[in-house]
Amino acid sequence: MPNRRSQRNSPDGAPLKSARPIGVIGGTGAQGFGLALRWAQAGETVIIGSREAARAQHAADKIKKKLGPHAKVTGDENRAVCAACDLLVLTVPFEGHAALLRELKPSIRPGAIVVDTTVPLAASVGGRATRTLSLWQGSAAEQTLELVPVGVKVVAAFQNVGSKLLTHDGPVDCDVVVCGDDREAVKTVSQLAAKIPGVRALDGGHLENARVLEQITALLIGFSVRNKTHCGIRITGLPESAILGGQR
Amino acid sequence: MPNRRSQRNSPDGAPLKSARPIGVIGGTGAQGFGLALRWAQAGETVIIGSREAARAQHAADKIKKKLGPHAKVTGDENRAVCAACDLLVLTVPFEGHAALLRELKPSIRPGAIVVDTTVPLAASVGGRATRTLSLWQGSAAEQTLELVPVGVKVVAAFQNVGSKLLTHDGPVDCDVVVCGDDREAVKTVSQLAAKIPGVRALDGGHLENARVLEQITALLIGFSVRNKTHCGIRITGLPESAILGGQR
Repeated sequence: MPNRRSQRNSPDGAPLKSARPIGVIGGTGAQGFGLALRWAQAGETVIIGSREAARAQHAADKIKKKLGPHAKVTGDENRAVCAACDLLVLTVPFEGHAALLRELKPSIRPGAIVVDTTVPLAASVGGRATRTLSLWQGSAAEQTLELVPVGVKVVAAFQNVGSKLLTHDGPVDCDVVVCGDDREAVKTVSQLAAKIPGVRALDGGHLENARVLEQITALLIGFSVRNKTHCGIRITGLPESAILGGQR
Repeated sequence: MPNRRSQRNSPDGAPLKSARPIGVIGGTGAQGFGLALRWAQAGETVIIGSREAARAQHAADKIKKKLGPHAKVTGDENRAVCAACDLLVLTVPFEGHAALLRELKPSIRPGAIVVDTTVPLAASVGGRATRTLSLWQGSAAEQTLELVPVGVKVVAAFQNVGSKLLTHDGPVDCDVVVCGDDREAVKTVSQLAAKIPGVRALDGGHLENARVLEQITALLIGFSVRNKTHCGIRITGLPESAILGGQR
């Protein structure tokens, strides 16, 4: 169902669709690929980023093969993607998170939005995927805030939507809680979340609340592993005004 | 709807109802009162505990007034409740958590189940209810495990079901994730959770996962405050076998 609220919020009054390309850094991984697929499916322009442009292009071709040649998806090297997009989605494993951000920093455009989906699973250091690491900054998203250029807006989202939920056909039975300190950036990312059928984008308050979102992923992985399934979460009891996009 | 699975799991083959009294330590507070009310409503025998027996009795009388004289609910001093029950539910504010457990330790019966509902909100030390404190043990429930006598089984549950959801009339739109290292104790507590209409009791794995449950409460409080409502959570995508009680 088209989201009238999202469209109303678009700066130029037109629907957000295709207004700007979405750069998916690390988009050859399962989570990034799933998000790129869903957004391409919704008619968005997506640029998949990878360390190697060829691998990124290969992932883009896979999406085109699935969706048809009309899909607006291409691939490029991560730095080139940063230079081309005001809206970046970071989908890299936590073990490469800080080093990659340092490398990308000079390429990130002033005032860009960086959406961090990262979860610091203990699996990153040889531990379990059902446990997280404690970070000095409090969360991966807050670590990102420290590593991007001043003025870049960091938003935390999509941690709880597993790649299997994204790549299967059909709607995703999961809320996306969107946390950030810049209200406009939170709205923009909520519009992006609402483009995934089934997803409700919820205002999760300040960026620091990413701490809880990241922990929830570890809990959901536990549920998924124990039950050989792919779990999500829903927040209950919310009024419609709390749902920033994707009302069902 | 009666829960056939719970009844099957009952040790003596009979329904759990009234098989043993439920002691609600700190049951004059909002959360404990709400749980005591729901269990009394379900026909369970409940003993409300408080520092002062008279206050506990007063809370029990309030429940009787609401439910009628048939309600099997009484009140007593916390230590007496510990001495009388094999099933204790800890519903005290975090600021009094450790000190109270040290005081109660000699009164807790060998092999008892202690259900910890505590959340270490930063509000306990003058901070915000939307933030938590980091505990050395990892969670309030794991702190409890350190403070109870050896052999007592600690189960973490009910952190995410706010008092307002419990004391309003009608079903509770929230899952109760039950975490613990003793499978039988987890099942018993799940039966207890399933007695609250609307609640699904979910197997949350080991006690250490209480860390995430406690964090989720802070996130839910944020949602509730921002939206002037009372929120809960649901885990999606689970097979029926993951639901230990209260299927809808």
